[in-house]
Amino acid sequence: MSEVRTKATLAKSAAAAMNRLTTEQKNHALGVMADALQKEQAAIIDANSADIMNGREKGTSESLLDRLTLNESRIAGIAEGLRQIIALPDPVGLLLESFERPNGLKVEKISVPLGVIGMIYEARPNVTVDAAGLCLKTGNTVVLRGGSAALETNRKIVEVLRSALQTTDVPADALQMIEDADRSSVDEMLKLNGLLDVVIPRGGASLIRNVVDNATVPVIETGAGICHTFIDESADYDMASDIAFNAKVQRPSVCNAMETLLVHESFAKKHLHELADRFLKSDVQLHGCPRTMEIVPEALLASDADYATEYNDYILNIRVVHDLDEALSHIAQFGTMHSECIVTANQENAVRFLQEVDAAAVYHNASTRFTDGFEFGFGAEIGISTQKLHARGPMGLPALTSTKYRIYGAGQIRG
Amino acid sequence: MSEVRTKATLAKSAAAAMNRLTTEQKNHALGVMADALQKEQAAIIDANSADIMNGREKGTSESLLDRLTLNESRIAGIAEGLRQIIALPDPVGLLLESFERPNGLKVEKISVPLGVIGMIYEARPNVTVDAAGLCLKTGNTVVLRGGSAALETNRKIVEVLRSALQTTDVPADALQMIEDADRSSVDEMLKLNGLLDVVIPRGGASLIRNVVDNATVPVIETGAGICHTFIDESADYDMASDIAFNAKVQRPSVCNAMETLLVHESFAKKHLHELADRFLKSDVQLHGCPRTMEIVPEALLASDADYATEYNDYILNIRVVHDLDEALSHIAQFGTMHSECIVTANQENAVRFLQEVDAAAVYHNASTRFTDGFEFGFGAEIGISTQKLHARGPMGLPALTSTKYRIYGAGQIRG
Repeated sequence: MSEVRTKATLAKSAAAAMNRLTTEQKNHALGVMADALQKEQAAIIDANSADIMNGREKGTSESLLDRLTLNESRIAGIAEGLRQIIALPDPVGLLLESFERPNGLKVEKISVPLGVIGMIYEARPNVTVDAAGLCLKTGNTVVLRGGSAALETNRKIVEVLRSALQTTDVPADALQMIEDADRSSVDEMLKLNGLLDVVIPRGGASLIRNVVDNATVPVIETGAGICHTFIDESADYDMASDIAFNAKVQRPSVCNAMETLLVHESFAKKHLHELADRFLKSDVQLHGCPRTMEIVPEALLASDADYATEYNDYILNIRVVHDLDEALSHIAQFGTMHSECIVTANQENAVRFLQEVDAAAVYHNASTRFTDGFEFGFGAEIGISTQKLHARGPMGLPALTSTKYRIYGAGQIRG
Repeated sequence: MSEVRTKATLAKSAAAAMNRLTTEQKNHALGVMADALQKEQAAIIDANSADIMNGREKGTSESLLDRLTLNESRIAGIAEGLRQIIALPDPVGLLLESFERPNGLKVEKISVPLGVIGMIYEARPNVTVDAAGLCLKTGNTVVLRGGSAALETNRKIVEVLRSALQTTDVPADALQMIEDADRSSVDEMLKLNGLLDVVIPRGGASLIRNVVDNATVPVIETGAGICHTFIDESADYDMASDIAFNAKVQRPSVCNAMETLLVHESFAKKHLHELADRFLKSDVQLHGCPRTMEIVPEALLASDADYATEYNDYILNIRVVHDLDEALSHIAQFGTMHSECIVTANQENAVRFLQEVDAAAVYHNASTRFTDGFEFGFGAEIGISTQKLHARGPMGLPALTSTKYRIYGAGQIRG
């Protein structure tokens, strides 16, 4: 049997035992895992150095190497993340509904683990620990398939965590990691119907596209975010400028950052010059529609391809629109149903925008950067769903559960 | 543009208008649709006769032709189904959660339509009307792709319904039907990412397999049911016999019917002969394990392939097991996570079974035939989900909704 199938089978075989654990048993294991990471930090940092060295030889960019790098303080942060999961309520085993039918059948709807979760991700090794902790807390088993750039680090982390689990009631087989860095191991995971209950991809657009296009197992699509901010005619300048600037510049590399700024023509006449200047001074490259270019000569001409690009970088499209309707149709055409914002003092327009924009998170007068499990107060985040099934937007622990109906009878049969 | 893409695009273009409708507007349209079906019943029956004639020429079985056949009374029943949807609560626009963050952001989680739903189904034309009604009530638009055996009937029904919608506030384009009976039209639907928000297949195992294997759009898998009844040592004979008999014989063709009966060895010694006799007298063909064959010589030897088959027919596997654990592992190996039952007087075993069996519906002392939206009191059913994402088990109206976060700020930006 291949590595992928072998490990997925082990994960599935551990699922029943996971579903029998108490909250206390799971929380104890999370604490043991956190302690083990810090106790073994020297070995983890050694393994990480090997990844960094490999990466440098392959010419990996310094910014990516920085994201890959672990040190004592980052490991402490990662361990602290596990400990925070302990404090979160256990979402499994909750009685969600209960009702009695006229024939006397008692029906209960209970939250249960999803079962076996496949995580396919890139780069940062903290995802390895986060995913392990979130899946364990929700009674799931997990098959991790991280990127090759962090292979040594992930391998050592998983070794430390599995070894820590040996001393707990959580079966070590609940945590599996695919070491085969070949793309074919991903493709194999995507077809493991009957072994994996869901696959969650986390990473760049091409990783997610590959998963969505090729998976036959259920997928929770995450991440791709072409987010817009629409500044309406009536917007307060300072508020609009701060929100737009924050949405683009505070952390351009993430999915809830703004890619396109839509500006009402009246607002543009009065303020676009000054607003564009603020972006230019922060080295944001501007692409604009023809009307933008009249006001901001530094802008390059924006194409439809630009509007359809998730830059994740210091690049911004600006488009002047005639009214709310034009903004709504731009978003309907180019948005990815992630996070969209209107800045306006016009209550009626705000209501329409929040009602009519089809996205996971729609904002009135706040930065799209808040679409995040921690910012929403979930205490955790396994990803941000950009699909409409199962979970939408930031996913906390409940997104890692399913349900089951329990029916209690006294011999009822159907007539 | 192909028929499929053209109609999906029209459905998507109608989605925003659907999302603006009030409950009253939707309910009014449902009533108008029901009336139109009855008013136009002669034309519908004419079209149906053409399908029946075609089917008879092609040698379609009489039982299938019977399921296809519409008459006044069946059309009245279908129209009545639409009217019943009027009385159900509107699951869209509900405030599901709301909370305020320390920074003053107010977050609301609202139920919203899924958007555009693709229904791929076979045979009975009542699904055409049911799906149209359920999708309309939930503010969704729908692209229907029924089986070729009911093509003329479905075409006429959709024509009648779309024409009825012209007199209402519901856009007729919310209801689309693919007339191309070639399998390639299904394949095209399965790849319409960005146009279809979900595809729901309803039909036989091969239809569902094709959808799951080939869809790149999100899918809600329905239907396949290899359901078990486990009769424990302590089961009351009459109750066990009635439940098992009902689960197999009352309607063998459906997904919640039993395919395999698991019998505790002590119960088997005392009662299996009599119980098997009851099935044989109703012309149920029996396949059994070697121990079953000792008690029931009429049984054929059951293979693993038999245990893995959804017969949907008067055929039953019987397996004698040593204890609850052996029953649990049989179900884990061969079950499809649909509906599973234990008949027992032993409370501890009942609790273990209901906890440990991984299925949408787990029963203690009642027939698996109750896994059904109407039997659960949902007042409607779009299908029975056998996957763990989004919805599990019988799906009523709420399963056709997603959620959206609305966030109200006063200029908040992320630090």
